[in-house]
Amino acid sequence: MKKRIRDLESFLCEDPTSLSSESHRIEPDLDFSMLTNPLGNPFDLSDSGIDLSKATKNVFERLTQYPDNRYSELRASIASFLGNTIIPEQVIPGNGSCELLKLVLECTVDEGDKVVIVQPAMDLFEKYCSIHGAEIMHLMGEDLRDINDSLLKDTKIVFLSNPSDVSGKLMETAKLNKLSELCSQNGTLLFVNESCIDFADNSASVISLTNSSNHLFVLRSFETVFAIPGIRIGFGLTSPKMAEKLNSARLSWNLGVVSEKAAISLMKRDDLSNNYLAKSREYISENREYLATRLDKIRKFNVLPGDAHYVLVDVSASSIDSTELTNRLLNAGIKVMDCSCFYSMGKDFIRVSVRSKEDTDSLVREIGVAVVDSARDKAMRELEASLLSPDFSATGPNKECPYYPCHFQGQDCTFCFCPFYPCGDERTGGKWVERSSGGKVWSCEKCDIVHHLETAEKLVFELKGDSPMEEKLKKAWKKVVDPLL
Amino acid sequence: MKKRIRDLESFLCEDPTSLSSESHRIEPDLDFSMLTNPLGNPFDLSDSGIDLSKATKNVFERLTQYPDNRYSELRASIASFLGNTIIPEQVIPGNGSCELLKLVLECTVDEGDKVVIVQPAMDLFEKYCSIHGAEIMHLMGEDLRDINDSLLKDTKIVFLSNPSDVSGKLMETAKLNKLSELCSQNGTLLFVNESCIDFADNSASVISLTNSSNHLFVLRSFETVFAIPGIRIGFGLTSPKMAEKLNSARLSWNLGVVSEKAAISLMKRDDLSNNYLAKSREYISENREYLATRLDKIRKFNVLPGDAHYVLVDVSASSIDSTELTNRLLNAGIKVMDCSCFYSMGKDFIRVSVRSKEDTDSLVREIGVAVVDSARDKAMRELEASLLSPDFSATGPNKECPYYPCHFQGQDCTFCFCPFYPCGDERTGGKWVERSSGGKVWSCEKCDIVHHLETAEKLVFELKGDSPMEEKLKKAWKKVVDPLL
Repeated sequence: MKKRIRDLESFLCEDPTSLSSESHRIEPDLDFSMLTNPLGNPFDLSDSGIDLSKATKNVFERLTQYPDNRYSELRASIASFLGNTIIPEQVIPGNGSCELLKLVLECTVDEGDKVVIVQPAMDLFEKYCSIHGAEIMHLMGEDLRDINDSLLKDTKIVFLSNPSDVSGKLMETAKLNKLSELCSQNGTLLFVNESCIDFADNSASVISLTNSSNHLFVLRSFETVFAIPGIRIGFGLTSPKMAEKLNSARLSWNLGVVSEKAAISLMKRDDLSNNYLAKSREYISENREYLATRLDKIRKFNVLPGDAHYVLVDVSASSIDSTELTNRLLNAGIKVMDCSCFYSMGKDFIRVSVRSKEDTDSLVREIGVAVVDSARDKAMRELEASLLSPDFSATGPNKECPYYPCHFQGQDCTFCFCPFYPCGDERTGGKWVERSSGGKVWSCEKCDIVHHLETAEKLVFELKGDSPMEEKLKKAWKKVVDPLL
Repeated sequence: MKKRIRDLESFLCEDPTSLSSESHRIEPDLDFSMLTNPLGNPFDLSDSGIDLSKATKNVFERLTQYPDNRYSELRASIASFLGNTIIPEQVIPGNGSCELLKLVLECTVDEGDKVVIVQPAMDLFEKYCSIHGAEIMHLMGEDLRDINDSLLKDTKIVFLSNPSDVSGKLMETAKLNKLSELCSQNGTLLFVNESCIDFADNSASVISLTNSSNHLFVLRSFETVFAIPGIRIGFGLTSPKMAEKLNSARLSWNLGVVSEKAAISLMKRDDLSNNYLAKSREYISENREYLATRLDKIRKFNVLPGDAHYVLVDVSASSIDSTELTNRLLNAGIKVMDCSCFYSMGKDFIRVSVRSKEDTDSLVREIGVAVVDSARDKAMRELEASLLSPDFSATGPNKECPYYPCHFQGQDCTFCFCPFYPCGDERTGGKWVERSSGGKVWSCEKCDIVHHLETAEKLVFELKGDSPMEEKLKKAWKKVVDPLL
């Protein structure tokens, strides 16, 4: 086995929501991390007029036969659906879009060959380039200004996604056309992932250039556009000459009859499919606006402008990092994409896909809870650490805090978050209130007991020492708080 | 693009029955070329108790979700179905068995690396080895005696099929075990394709060695065993260590939910699946015997002994070659495998899969027709060529012919096959007879007109010259034959 394969990291990752996680998989109630069409698939929409069970009616009778490895009908349907001078001879069908990425690498790259990945981009480029032994150069900046003849001279492939599958930004068509020309002149293949372009602006597509260039490959994804990742269908577009070779080298019968027939049924009803896509764009545009506005209003969250069905959110100014936020949301049944797995993004960004306004409201609410909980836990951890020191005493007011004074002028802030929370004792002035998302939450709005200096000092005294915190808290309540009620 | 990919021959082949043929595809009425289970798939058998529509009932509701890329349930089901100490960690699921062949090559072979293919073997080994730039050595002789340390020293992979997918012969288990050890000692991967072993004798399998060897890969194929090539499912077995790496390198989500669920339903009902396999073996054993006996009785056809659900037939002694025979049968709606596409087999062999006795009867009948038609056409072509020479005259009796004298002692054999066939004129003594396969055929049994020397000489005279043969035949009938009736 090749060294680079032996060195591959396990396909089993630690993220409990990941489809490749070996640990118990958590199914989120609301998934804001997927890139598939938020409208749902056209088979599920009663008014789409596209019926999957009809489309695949005869499939189960055909299981004893191999699929047609030419995929003539499918390729013709795709070409006719795309229009735009595309002919069937340009189409390479794929068992999901990833297979085409692998195929292009297999046919182009030898170990040590240089490839460029324009960032920010999905991690799949990197994964498959590594498997094929390519030497990867990451190029920051979607404006492409750093790509020139001297860079391309010994570069086999330039990979980019349009729109970026991380930022959602579309590239300027003129710049992309120029890049395509530059690549062609240097014998470099330009690989453009347009999996999400139908949700942004498909007039920005470069598919019309594929017929005449032997150095351009465009990737499209049915599973994304029509929200059917359960049946794996993507396709590539390139010159007829290149497509013939790629079709010869691809896995024989790579699409089963179910995928083949489902895709044909979508393409054949192009009036309905186009109608569904127009509806999807309308839905996305309206709900993205709402999503971006709501997220941008969250303190220290910064939504970056984009054109796709997801938004990139910079959380670097916030007290919570992207990984902690993602994990806390997950415990509340909500999944967003933690961008820390993407190249050079640190723990500063989350990517959030468009969903309904109602879902967005739930997300924003849970982000609020996550941020507060994070701050409370952090404060508690800091307090516990401080209590280990025998010299520690009450800290007085924290005038640096942006929320100061949350209760009264001159308040003591040692217990920024109450260590007894939620005490459930209404004599404190606190009470259980209904949560808009269902369930109850303890509100301390009317209680300022721990913020009086004298009380704080007594509590610090009680909470010092080696006994378990639970025991000390019980004792401190009895000795310090209870007498005040 | 790599040179070897640019040099790849088109995936569109000329065989009109081929699934990858660009020309109009002929669907044979009877297909004796497929390697899938001749009993049909268990979903179609009413008494198998395995219901595909039930198994995949919820699949269409899951299309908006990605499959589980770990395929935990599927891998566990396969391991439990196989028993034999196999654990889920050894299983690599594949989108058809070919994908696993590609995956192993991708993870093991760099351009120029040596691989050995034990012949006779399917052409897929060769195809994918070429795509991956391997330097191929073909090793004749299934007895493996030519494989030694010095050969293995710089060989990356040894490929073989057990049973051979061409001859159907099983290898001796002891020899295979020894080879596995030898490969392991030399750091060579032994790749054993066991796609058809369930139809032969699965006690000859080497899967029990996979757990402990990092140099053994066994390929299995659901699509073959359960006759479901329309949904693509194969799997590989190897050591847990190697399997982990191969699973990391394989295409993510390579099986769609339909394939995944169908396979799980087959494995989960292992009582029923095993019952179905036992039935299949019974069916094959009984009908292979009949097929082999009937084919072997055909003049100059030699059936080679084998253990699988197909037989290899040597037709080299016959007057018809494998390609002509295959094409003629195809025109009669019957497909057999012409082995001329396999390495070094010339046009000397056909491979014939087991079907019902009734289908075998049809095949044998049509082979008879094909052989006679071929001989007639050949005789006619030779005669036409001879007639171009002005010196040509009637040839007299052909005492070398094994059928001489087919009519009477001293007969003239110039027109071995009558040029007027089928004349349809009952005055000659000929008549239309019912064919057992339906339709009518003209029988010349009672007519010997063209075999009289004087008549033959007159016919030769009339058929010489430049006019179109059709015209000359019409004239000759009127001048020579009609007066005799």
